[in-house]
Amino acid sequence: MKLLSRIACVAVCLSCTAVAHAQMKHEDAIKFRQSAYGFLAWNMGKIKANLDGNFNKEQVANAAHAIAAVANSGMGALYLPGTDKGAGWKETRLKSEFFAQQEEAGKLARAFGAAANELDKVAATGDVAAIKAQFGKTGETCKSCHDKFRKD
Amino acid sequence: MKLLSRIACVAVCLSCTAVAHAQMKHEDAIKFRQSAYGFLAWNMGKIKANLDGNFNKEQVANAAHAIAAVANSGMGALYLPGTDKGAGWKETRLKSEFFAQQEEAGKLARAFGAAANELDKVAATGDVAAIKAQFGKTGETCKSCHDKFRKD
Ligand code: HEC
Ligand code: HEC
Repeated sequence: MKLLSRIACVAVCLSCTAVAHAQMKHEDAIKFRQSAYGFLAWNMGKIKANLDGNFNKEQVANAAHAIAAVANSGMGALYLPGTDKGAGWKETRLKSEFFAQQEEAGKLARAFGAAANELDKVAATGDVAAIKAQFGKTGETCKSCHDKFRKD
Repeated sequence: MKLLSRIACVAVCLSCTAVAHAQMKHEDAIKFRQSAYGFLAWNMGKIKANLDGNFNKEQVANAAHAIAAVANSGMGALYLPGTDKGAGWKETRLKSEFFAQQEEAGKLARAFGAAANELDKVAATGDVAAIKAQFGKTGETCKSCHDKFRKD
Protein backbone atom coordinates (compact mmCIF):
# COMPACT_ATOMS: atom_id res chain seq x y z
CA MET A 1 0.00 0.00 0.00
CA LYS A 2 2.76 2.38 0.99
CA LEU A 3 4.77 1.38 -2.07
CA LEU A 4 1.74 1.67 -4.33
CA SER A 5 0.92 5.21 -3.22
CA ARG A 6 4.57 6.11 -3.65
CA ILE A 7 4.49 4.89 -7.22
CA ALA A 8 1.27 6.80 -7.91
CA CYS A 9 2.88 9.82 -6.38
CA VAL A 10 5.95 9.70 -8.62
CA ALA A 11 3.79 9.02 -11.65
CA VAL A 12 1.60 12.06 -11.14
CA CYS A 13 4.26 14.58 -10.18
CA LEU A 14 7.22 14.06 -12.43
CA SER A 15 8.74 17.43 -11.70
CA CYS A 16 9.66 16.94 -8.07
CA THR A 17 12.26 14.79 -6.34
CA ALA A 18 11.18 11.41 -5.05
CA VAL A 19 12.98 12.15 -1.81
CA ALA A 20 10.89 15.17 -0.90
CA HIS A 21 7.82 13.17 -1.83
CA ALA A 22 8.42 9.95 -0.09
CA GLN A 23 8.47 11.81 3.18
CA MET A 24 5.57 14.22 2.87
CA LYS A 25 2.43 13.51 4.87
CA HIS A 26 -0.89 14.43 3.28
CA GLU A 27 -1.77 16.84 6.08
CA ASP A 28 1.54 18.63 5.52
CA ALA A 29 0.95 18.89 1.76
CA ILE A 30 -2.47 20.44 2.42
CA LYS A 31 -1.10 22.78 5.08
CA PHE A 32 1.73 23.91 2.83
CA ARG A 33 -0.54 24.70 -0.09
CA GLN A 34 -3.03 26.52 2.15
CA SER A 35 -0.04 28.47 3.50
CA ALA A 36 1.21 29.33 0.02
CA TYR A 37 -2.25 30.55 -1.03
CA GLY A 38 -2.65 32.55 2.18
CA PHE A 39 0.69 34.20 1.55
CA LEU A 40 -0.38 34.94 -2.05
CA ALA A 41 -3.61 36.53 -0.84
CA TRP A 42 -1.72 38.84 1.50
CA ASN A 43 0.61 39.99 -1.25
CA MET A 44 -2.20 40.49 -3.77
CA GLY A 45 -4.01 42.50 -1.09
CA LYS A 46 -0.99 44.73 -0.58
CA ILE A 47 -0.79 45.49 -4.29
CA LYS A 48 -4.51 46.26 -4.37
CA ALA A 49 -4.21 48.61 -1.38
CA ASN A 50 -1.37 50.42 -3.15
CA LEU A 51 -3.34 50.74 -6.38
CA ASP A 52 -6.36 52.05 -4.47
CA GLY A 53 -4.40 54.38 -2.18
CA ASN A 54 -0.89 55.74 -1.86
CA PHE A 55 1.34 53.94 -4.30
CA ASN A 56 4.64 52.75 -2.83
CA LYS A 57 6.78 51.39 -5.64
CA GLU A 58 9.09 49.31 -3.47
CA GLN A 59 6.27 47.65 -1.54
CA VAL A 60 4.49 46.73 -4.78
CA ALA A 61 7.67 45.41 -6.39
CA ASN A 62 8.44 43.27 -3.33
CA ALA A 63 4.90 41.90 -3.22
CA ALA A 64 4.94 41.06 -6.94
CA HIS A 65 8.32 39.40 -6.50
CA ALA A 66 6.94 37.30 -3.65
CA ILE A 67 3.94 36.25 -5.76
CA ALA A 68 6.23 35.19 -8.60
CA ALA A 69 8.46 33.28 -6.18
CA VAL A 70 5.43 31.30 -5.00
CA ALA A 71 4.40 30.65 -8.60
CA ASN A 72 7.90 29.32 -9.33
CA SER A 73 8.14 27.21 -6.17
CA GLY A 74 6.82 23.96 -7.65
CA MET A 75 3.46 23.80 -5.89
CA GLY A 76 2.44 20.87 -8.10
CA ALA A 77 4.37 18.71 -5.65
CA LEU A 78 1.77 19.55 -3.00
CA TYR A 79 -1.08 17.99 -4.96
CA LEU A 80 -0.48 14.40 -3.94
CA PRO A 81 -3.18 11.94 -5.00
CA GLY A 82 -5.62 11.57 -2.13
CA THR A 83 -5.17 15.11 -0.84
CA ASP A 84 -8.69 16.04 -1.92
CA LYS A 85 -9.53 14.60 1.52
CA GLY A 86 -7.96 15.57 4.81
CA ALA A 87 -6.98 18.66 6.78
CA GLY A 88 -3.96 20.94 6.90
CA TRP A 89 -4.60 24.19 8.79
CA LYS A 90 -8.21 23.19 8.14
CA GLU A 91 -10.22 20.78 5.93
CA THR A 92 -9.03 20.98 2.34
CA ARG A 93 -11.17 22.74 -0.26
CA LEU A 94 -9.60 20.92 -3.20
CA LYS A 95 -12.20 19.36 -5.51
CA SER A 96 -11.70 15.71 -6.42
CA GLU A 97 -12.03 16.66 -10.11
CA PHE A 98 -8.49 18.02 -9.90
CA PHE A 99 -6.96 14.56 -10.22
CA ALA A 100 -9.15 13.51 -13.14
CA GLN A 101 -8.33 16.72 -15.01
CA GLN A 102 -4.54 16.95 -14.71
CA GLU A 103 -4.18 18.59 -18.10
CA GLU A 104 -6.63 21.39 -17.34
CA ALA A 105 -5.10 21.86 -13.87
CA GLY A 106 -1.63 22.14 -15.37
CA LYS A 107 -2.88 24.66 -17.92
CA LEU A 108 -4.43 26.88 -15.23
CA ALA A 109 -1.33 26.62 -13.04
CA ARG A 110 0.90 27.62 -15.96
CA ALA A 111 -1.37 30.57 -16.79
CA PHE A 112 -0.99 31.75 -13.20
CA GLY A 113 2.79 31.30 -13.40
CA ALA A 114 3.04 33.30 -16.62
CA ALA A 115 0.84 36.10 -15.26
CA ALA A 116 2.76 36.26 -11.98
CA ASN A 117 6.15 36.42 -13.66
CA GLU A 118 4.91 39.17 -15.96
CA LEU A 119 3.50 41.06 -12.94
CA ASP A 120 6.93 40.79 -11.30
CA LYS A 121 8.55 42.35 -14.38
CA VAL A 122 5.97 45.10 -14.76
CA ALA A 123 6.04 45.94 -11.03
CA ALA A 124 9.79 46.53 -11.21
CA THR A 125 9.18 49.36 -13.71
CA GLY A 126 6.84 51.27 -11.37
CA ASP A 127 4.42 52.04 -14.25
CA VAL A 128 1.15 52.22 -12.29
CA ALA A 129 -1.26 51.80 -15.21
CA ALA A 130 0.62 48.77 -16.52
CA ILE A 131 0.79 47.27 -13.03
CA LYS A 132 -2.95 47.77 -12.59
CA ALA A 133 -3.67 45.96 -15.86
CA GLN A 134 -1.33 43.05 -15.13
CA PHE A 135 -2.59 42.81 -11.55
CA GLY A 136 -6.10 42.34 -12.94
CA LYS A 137 -4.94 39.62 -15.31
CA THR A 138 -3.14 37.82 -12.50
CA GLY A 139 -6.23 37.92 -10.30
CA GLU A 140 -8.22 36.35 -13.11
CA THR A 141 -5.85 33.37 -13.18
CA CYS A 142 -6.46 32.84 -9.44
CA LYS A 143 -10.18 33.01 -10.06
CA SER A 144 -10.28 30.57 -12.96
CA CYS A 145 -8.53 27.97 -10.90
CA HIS A 146 -10.85 28.50 -7.93
CA ASP A 147 -13.94 28.34 -10.15
CA LYS A 148 -12.82 24.97 -11.46
CA PHE A 149 -11.01 23.26 -8.60
CA ARG A 150 -11.82 24.88 -5.26
CA LYS A 151 -14.89 24.03 -3.22
CA ASP A 152 -17.07 26.89 -1.99
CA MET B 1 -10.36 53.42 20.94
CA LYS B 2 -10.30 52.71 17.24
CA LEU B 3 -8.30 55.85 16.60
CA LEU B 4 -5.95 55.09 19.47
CA SER B 5 -5.14 51.63 18.22
CA ARG B 6 -4.59 53.07 14.77
CA ILE B 7 -2.09 55.53 16.14
CA ALA B 8 -0.33 52.78 18.08
CA CYS B 9 -0.29 50.76 14.91
CA VAL B 10 1.37 53.45 12.85
CA ALA B 11 3.81 54.18 15.66
CA VAL B 12 4.97 50.58 15.91
CA CYS B 13 5.21 49.76 12.21
CA LEU B 14 6.70 52.72 10.44
CA SER B 15 7.65 50.77 7.37
CA CYS B 16 4.23 49.91 6.01
CA THR B 17 1.50 51.97 4.40
CA ALA B 18 -1.30 53.27 6.58
CA VAL B 19 -3.78 52.11 3.94
CA ALA B 20 -2.85 48.45 4.16
CA HIS B 21 -2.93 48.78 7.92
CA ALA B 22 -6.12 50.60 8.50
CA GLN B 23 -7.99 47.80 6.80
CA MET B 24 -6.34 44.70 8.18
CA LYS B 25 -8.27 42.64 10.70
CA HIS B 26 -6.28 40.99 13.46
CA GLU B 27 -7.38 37.51 12.43
CA ASP B 28 -6.14 38.20 8.90
CA ALA B 29 -2.77 39.46 10.16
CA ILE B 30 -2.35 36.26 12.20
CA LYS B 31 -3.49 34.05 9.31
CA PHE B 32 -1.12 35.76 6.89
CA ARG B 33 1.90 35.38 9.12
CA GLN B 34 1.06 31.74 9.88
CA SER B 35 0.77 31.27 6.11
CA ALA B 36 4.12 32.94 5.46
CA TYR B 37 5.82 30.74 8.07
CA GLY B 38 4.14 27.60 6.75
CA PHE B 39 5.38 28.47 3.27
CA LEU B 40 8.87 29.06 4.69
CA ALA B 41 8.84 25.68 6.42
CA TRP B 42 7.95 23.90 3.17
CA ASN B 43 10.78 25.58 1.30
CA MET B 44 13.32 24.95 4.05
CA GLY B 45 12.18 21.31 4.04
CA LYS B 46 12.75 21.05 0.29
CA ILE B 47 16.30 22.33 0.63
CA LYS B 48 16.97 19.90 3.47
CA ALA B 49 15.62 16.99 1.43
CA ASN B 50 17.92 17.98 -1.43
CA LEU B 51 20.95 18.23 0.84
CA ASP B 52 20.16 14.83 2.39
CA GLY B 53 19.32 13.10 -0.90
CA ASN B 54 19.57 13.79 -4.61
CA PHE B 55 20.59 17.40 -5.12
CA ASN B 56 18.54 19.26 -7.73
CA LYS B 57 20.15 22.65 -8.27
CA GLU B 58 17.09 24.34 -9.76
CA GLN B 59 14.72 23.17 -7.04
CA VAL B 60 17.10 24.41 -4.34
CA ALA B 61 17.63 27.77 -6.07
CA ASN B 62 13.86 28.28 -6.44
CA ALA B 63 13.23 27.36 -2.80
CA ALA B 64 15.97 29.72 -1.58
CA HIS B 65 14.56 32.46 -3.78
CA ALA B 66 11.10 31.93 -2.29
CA ILE B 67 12.51 32.10 1.25
CA ALA B 68 14.28 35.38 0.46
CA ALA B 69 11.10 36.78 -1.12
CA VAL B 70 9.22 36.07 2.12
CA ALA B 71 12.02 37.66 4.13
CA ASN B 72 11.77 40.78 1.95
CA SER B 73 7.97 40.94 2.00
CA GLY B 74 7.61 43.27 4.98
CA MET B 75 6.19 40.82 7.50
CA GLY B 76 6.62 43.42 10.26
CA ALA B 77 3.29 44.83 9.06
CA LEU B 78 1.60 41.63 10.26
CA TYR B 79 2.63 42.18 13.87
CA LEU B 80 -0.14 44.58 14.80
CA PRO B 81 -0.37 45.43 18.51
CA GLY B 82 -2.89 43.09 20.09
CA THR B 83 -2.17 40.18 17.74
CA ASP B 84 -0.59 38.19 20.56
CA LYS B 85 -4.23 37.17 21.16
CA GLY B 86 -6.63 35.75 18.60
CA ALA B 87 -6.75 33.14 15.87
CA GLY B 88 -5.83 33.03 12.19
CA TRP B 89 -5.74 29.50 10.78
CA LYS B 90 -5.51 28.64 14.48
CA GLU B 91 -4.77 30.34 17.82
CA THR B 92 -1.66 32.49 17.54
CA ARG B 93 1.58 31.34 19.13
CA LEU B 94 3.07 34.81 19.35
CA LYS B 95 4.35 35.66 22.83
CA SER B 96 3.24 38.95 24.34
CA GLU B 97 6.89 39.81 25.04
CA PHE B 98 7.23 40.59 21.34
CA PHE B 99 5.64 44.02 21.73
CA ALA B 100 7.70 44.99 24.77
CA GLN B 101 10.92 43.98 22.99
CA GLN B 102 10.61 45.64 19.60
CA GLU B 103 14.32 46.25 19.30
CA GLU B 104 15.25 42.62 19.92
CA ALA B 105 12.45 41.47 17.57
CA GLY B 106 13.71 43.77 14.83
CA LYS B 107 17.26 42.50 15.31
CA LEU B 108 16.16 38.87 14.97
CA ALA B 109 14.00 39.65 11.94
CA ARG B 110 16.90 41.45 10.24
CA ALA B 111 19.24 38.54 11.01
CA PHE B 112 16.77 36.21 9.29
CA GLY B 113 16.53 38.60 6.33
CA ALA B 114 20.30 38.80 5.93
CA ALA B 115 20.70 35.01 6.18
CA ALA B 116 17.88 34.37 3.70
CA ASN B 117 19.23 36.80 1.11
CA GLU B 118 22.69 35.26 1.44
CA LEU B 119 21.17 31.77 1.05
CA ASP B 120 19.46 32.98 -2.13
CA LYS B 121 22.82 34.15 -3.53
CA VAL B 122 24.69 31.01 -2.52
CA ALA B 123 21.95 28.70 -3.84
CA ALA B 124 22.22 30.30 -7.27
CA THR B 125 25.85 29.13 -7.48
CA GLY B 126 24.95 25.47 -6.92
CA ASP B 127 27.93 25.00 -4.54
CA VAL B 128 26.52 22.26 -2.30
CA ALA B 129 28.92 22.67 0.64
CA ALA B 130 28.37 26.42 0.75
CA ILE B 131 24.60 25.96 0.48
CA LYS B 132 24.67 23.46 3.34
CA ALA B 133 26.56 25.91 5.56
CA GLN B 134 24.31 28.86 4.75
CA PHE B 135 21.19 26.71 5.11
CA GLY B 136 22.32 25.86 8.64
CA LYS B 137 22.86 29.53 9.47
CA THR B 138 19.43 30.44 8.11
CA GLY B 139 17.77 27.73 10.19
CA GLU B 140 19.45 29.14 13.28
CA THR B 141 17.84 32.53 12.65
CA CYS B 142 14.40 30.84 12.55
CA LYS B 143 15.20 29.08 15.80
CA SER B 144 16.43 32.13 17.69
CA CYS B 145 13.21 33.94 16.93
CA HIS B 146 11.10 30.95 17.95
CA ASP B 147 13.06 30.50 21.19
CA LYS B 148 12.39 34.09 22.14
CA PHE B 149 8.95 34.93 20.71
CA ARG B 150 6.98 31.79 19.85
CA LYS B 151 4.97 29.84 22.42
CA ASP B 152 5.51 26.06 22.68
C1 HEC C 1 -3.81 26.05 -9.95
C2 HEC C 1 -4.87 26.40 -9.07
C3 HEC C 1 -4.88 27.66 -8.24
C4 HEC C 1 -4.31 28.88 -8.48
C5 HEC C 1 -3.53 29.32 -9.72
C6 HEC C 1 -4.59 29.70 -7.33
N1 HEC C 1 -5.32 29.01 -6.43
FE1 HEC C 1 -5.98 29.68 -4.60
N2 HEC C 1 -6.56 27.78 -4.14
C7 HEC C 1 -6.60 26.71 -5.00
C8 HEC C 1 -7.06 25.54 -4.30
C9 HEC C 1 -7.23 24.15 -4.88
C10 HEC C 1 -7.28 25.92 -2.97
C11 HEC C 1 -7.72 25.03 -1.81
C12 HEC C 1 -6.46 24.46 -1.15
C13 HEC C 1 -6.77 23.50 -0.02
O1 HEC C 1 -7.60 23.84 0.86
O2 HEC C 1 -6.17 22.41 -0.01
C14 HEC C 1 -6.95 27.35 -2.90
C15 HEC C 1 -7.05 28.11 -1.74
C16 HEC C 1 -6.84 29.47 -1.68
C17 HEC C 1 -6.99 30.27 -0.49
C18 HEC C 1 -7.38 29.76 0.90
C19 HEC C 1 -8.82 30.00 1.13
C20 HEC C 1 -9.28 29.34 2.42
O3 HEC C 1 -9.72 28.17 2.35
O4 HEC C 1 -9.22 29.98 3.48
C21 HEC C 1 -6.72 31.57 -0.84
C22 HEC C 1 -6.77 32.78 0.07
C23 HEC C 1 -6.34 31.57 -2.25
N3 HEC C 1 -6.42 30.28 -2.72
C24 HEC C 1 -5.95 32.68 -2.97
C25 HEC C 1 -5.31 32.62 -4.22
C26 HEC C 1 -4.70 33.74 -4.90
C27 HEC C 1 -4.68 35.16 -4.36
C28 HEC C 1 -4.17 33.26 -6.07
C29 HEC C 1 -3.42 33.97 -7.16
C30 HEC C 1 -2.54 35.08 -6.87
C31 HEC C 1 -4.48 31.85 -6.13
N4 HEC C 1 -5.16 31.50 -4.99
C32 HEC C 1 -4.14 31.02 -7.19
C33 HEC C 1 -6.24 26.74 -6.32
C34 HEC C 1 -5.52 27.76 -6.94
C1 HEC D 1 11.21 37.32 13.59
C2 HEC D 1 10.68 36.11 14.15
C3 HEC D 1 10.62 34.82 13.35
C4 HEC D 1 11.43 34.37 12.35
C5 HEC D 1 12.67 35.03 11.77
C6 HEC D 1 10.89 33.08 11.94
N1 HEC D 1 9.79 32.78 12.68
FE1 HEC D 1 8.63 31.11 12.51
N2 HEC D 1 7.26 31.94 13.78
C7 HEC D 1 7.45 33.10 14.51
C8 HEC D 1 6.25 33.37 15.29
C9 HEC D 1 6.04 34.55 16.22
C10 HEC D 1 5.35 32.35 14.99
C11 HEC D 1 3.90 32.22 15.52
C12 HEC D 1 2.99 32.98 14.55
C13 HEC D 1 1.54 32.98 14.99
O1 HEC D 1 1.01 31.88 15.34
O2 HEC D 1 0.93 34.06 15.00
C14 HEC D 1 6.01 31.47 14.03
C15 HEC D 1 5.41 30.34 13.49
C16 HEC D 1 6.06 29.45 12.65
C17 HEC D 1 5.46 28.23 12.13
C18 HEC D 1 4.04 27.75 12.37
C19 HEC D 1 4.04 26.72 13.45
C20 HEC D 1 2.63 26.34 13.86
O3 HEC D 1 2.11 26.98 14.79
O4 HEC D 1 2.07 25.42 13.25
C21 HEC D 1 6.43 27.62 11.37
C22 HEC D 1 6.28 26.29 10.63
C23 HEC D 1 7.61 28.46 11.38
N3 HEC D 1 7.34 29.56 12.17
C24 HEC D 1 8.77 28.21 10.68
C25 HEC D 1 9.78 29.17 10.47
C26 HEC D 1 10.91 29.00 9.58
C27 HEC D 1 11.19 27.75 8.78
C28 HEC D 1 11.64 30.16 9.63
C29 HEC D 1 12.91 30.56 8.92
C30 HEC D 1 13.19 30.09 7.61
C31 HEC D 1 10.97 31.04 10.57
N4 HEC D 1 9.85 30.40 11.06
C32 HEC D 1 11.43 32.31 10.92
C33 HEC D 1 8.57 33.89 14.51
C34 HEC D 1 9.60 33.81 13.56
